[in-house]
Order: sequence, then structure tokens, then C-alpha cells
Amino acid sequence: MSKYLVPVGLSNRHIHLSKEHIDILFGEGHELTKFKDLSQPGQYACEEKVDLVGPKKTIKGVRVLGPARPNTQVEVALADGFVLGVKPPVRDSGDIAGSPGLKIVGPKGEVEIEEGVIAAARHIHMHTSDGEKFGINDKDIVKVRIEGKRGLIFENVLARVNPNYALEFHVDLEEGNAAGLKNGDMVEIIKE
Amino acid sequence: MSKYLVPVGLSNRHIHLSKEHIDILFGEGHELTKFKDLSQPGQYACEEKVDLVGPKKTIKGVRVLGPARPNTQVEVALADGFVLGVKPPVRDSGDIAGSPGLKIVGPKGEVEIEEGVIAAARHIHMHTSDGEKFGINDKDIVKVRIEGKRGLIFENVLARVNPNYALEFHVDLEEGNAAGLKNGDMVEIIKE
Repeated sequence: MSKYLVPVGLSNRHIHLSKEHIDILFGEGHELTKFKDLSQPGQYACEEKVDLVGPKKTIKGVRVLGPARPNTQVEVALADGFVLGVKPPVRDSGDIAGSPGLKIVGPKGEVEIEEGVIAAARHIHMHTSDGEKFGINDKDIVKVRIEGKRGLIFENVLARVNPNYALEFHVDLEEGNAAGLKNGDMVEIIKE
Repeated sequence: MSKYLVPVGLSNRHIHLSKEHIDILFGEGHELTKFKDLSQPGQYACEEKVDLVGPKKTIKGVRVLGPARPNTQVEVALADGFVLGVKPPVRDSGDIAGSPGLKIVGPKGEVEIEEGVIAAARHIHMHTSDGEKFGINDKDIVKVRIEGKRGLIFENVLARVNPNYALEFHVDLEEGNAAGLKNGDMVEIIKE
């Protein structure tokens, strides 16, 4: 049987901003400036950066990802949460209800968000054609096996299948280091 | 069948020092001062701290663990290696041949080590009686299963069985965060 392989994409801390918050942080009518395209179609890293001010410490220079989203969402590692002094829950993107807030500081202003700080739950983006090839449907839970000295099997991996997605397994830097992964490594999907 | 459970111990970056290096860093004849006992019998965290100076950046205030060892060994997370500007290999404790070095700065002096910077390979300490109960021998490779939102199965876990050890599963903070673990959590050993 052939293996189902997927390339790894490691996520460093970043922030998605609402249009309203872009206006406050960078000035009324500001348009985000693309720094480089990300692997997911239409998504890009921006030149813009902000500072995250937690009750304990500040993390400076956190990159904004575009385009604007309906709700501002801060994605950090659990270790970042410890530095900031907040406890980000492990959540799927968009599921921010009841998560902690913090202060976001930009060059033109600052915003205090009530919620929106999460540690992103590991997930796989798949184009519809990959889903068909692998026999995996949107919202299926799969496993991902990594080989090597830090070999492990990630369980509870959410598959997100969509015609707008490109095949990629997303974990944060702590998960990546725990498994000895680098960007672009090919790893194996295991169906439940 | 009953589960084989083991408590988790999370390791932050730390350093073991040789007697010679203790003399240089803290002064001739200096004796390490116990801050608190660790779970492994005879091992303790010390009041003493040092700075690690890498080619890229310095990490200040890294705790010394006692007692003195034959060879100085620096145990850091892979993310620490990135900050320092060195690439620690994932190694079992004591296996430092060919690993990178760096400069260690103490209150009374400094030492440039040629090798000794590693990322500790995950392992389980077991008393001989635990080994017998679990049917696991020294140097066996086992797996460890973690449940929950960040559930995963660590593979390639080295069992170290010794009458001087206490039962504990050691991972670093990145591995711990990747699995959503806290100190003292009980996790399951799976035999190969």
C-alpha cells in the first residue's frame, strides 16, 4: 500500500487582524503590504509587525498575516503564553470564544482585545483532490507519523479539505521541535 | 490489562558541570549549593546559575544541576539552540562526542567548551522494581502515549532501569508543550 505523504509547514507566532484593528494599529484606510506568499492560496505574510503586551511581558515584532479576517486572532506557542502571562487554549482557527485577550501595539495605535489568543491545534490543509485521493473528508480526525530520533505519532489531527487549500501539515514550532521537523519534511498520514 | 503509568518530569534548559569547570566559574574549591532536590535520588538543582554565550546570542541565568559530573554537559531545547546559534543534536545524556560547544560564563570566570551542548533525548527513569513490574529492561525502547487535545505517542523512548532511579518520564519543555503536558501528569508506557 502506498503511503499518504504530506509536507510539513511550521507556524511561528503570528497575528490575523480585523479591518477595524488594522485601521487602529496602522492608520485609517491602511492596506496590508505583502512580504511573501504563504503555501495556502491567497494567504500571505505581511511587512507589518505588532507587539503583544501581556500581563507579564511583551513579545515584540510579531508578524501580521493577511488578508484581514472578520476577527483578530493571535496564534502563539504555549511557551509564548508563559512569557506573556496568558494561558492560550489549544483551539482550531476561528474558535476563540473564551480565550484570553491582551494588548496589541502598532505604530499608529493600540488595541485591547478581550479574547483571541490561542495555540493553534495541529491540522492538515488538503485540496479536495487530495481528500479524494487519500479517502479523507473535511473535519476527519487522522494521525500523522514522524520518523527519526524524535519519532512520534501526532493524534487528533484535524483534516481540513477545501478547494482553496494546498496540501500541508501545520504544527507550531514547539510541536515541530518535539518531532525534529523542518519545513518541507514529508510525513505520513495515518487514517484512524 | 492494567496500564503502565509513569509521572511526567519536564526539563528546562540546565547545565551539569565538571569539578574543574566549577572551580573556574565559581572559584577554586567552590562547593555547589543545593536549591532543591530533584526526583532522581542524589540529584539536585543548585543556587548557582551561569550564562551561555553562543555565536549568535546569550541565554542568561541557566541553572546548574548537581552533583558535579565527569564532563560538563549543557542540555537545551532546540529553540534555545536557535537563539544561541548552535545546533544541539538529540542525544542520550553523556553522549556528547562531536556536539557543539559554546562559552559558559560564571561569576568568577569563564570556560569555552569544545563540545557538550545537546538536546536530551526523551527517556524514562525506572527503579529496578518498576522494570520488573513492567517487564522492561535497561536500554529497552518503548513508547509513551499522551491523551487529550494534543494527544500523541512518543516513539523511541529509552528506558533506563537502575536501583538508583525513581520512576519518571523526562521530556524537555518543547516536547511537553507539544503534548500539552504538565509536571506530574500520569502517562502510559506502551511496550514495543
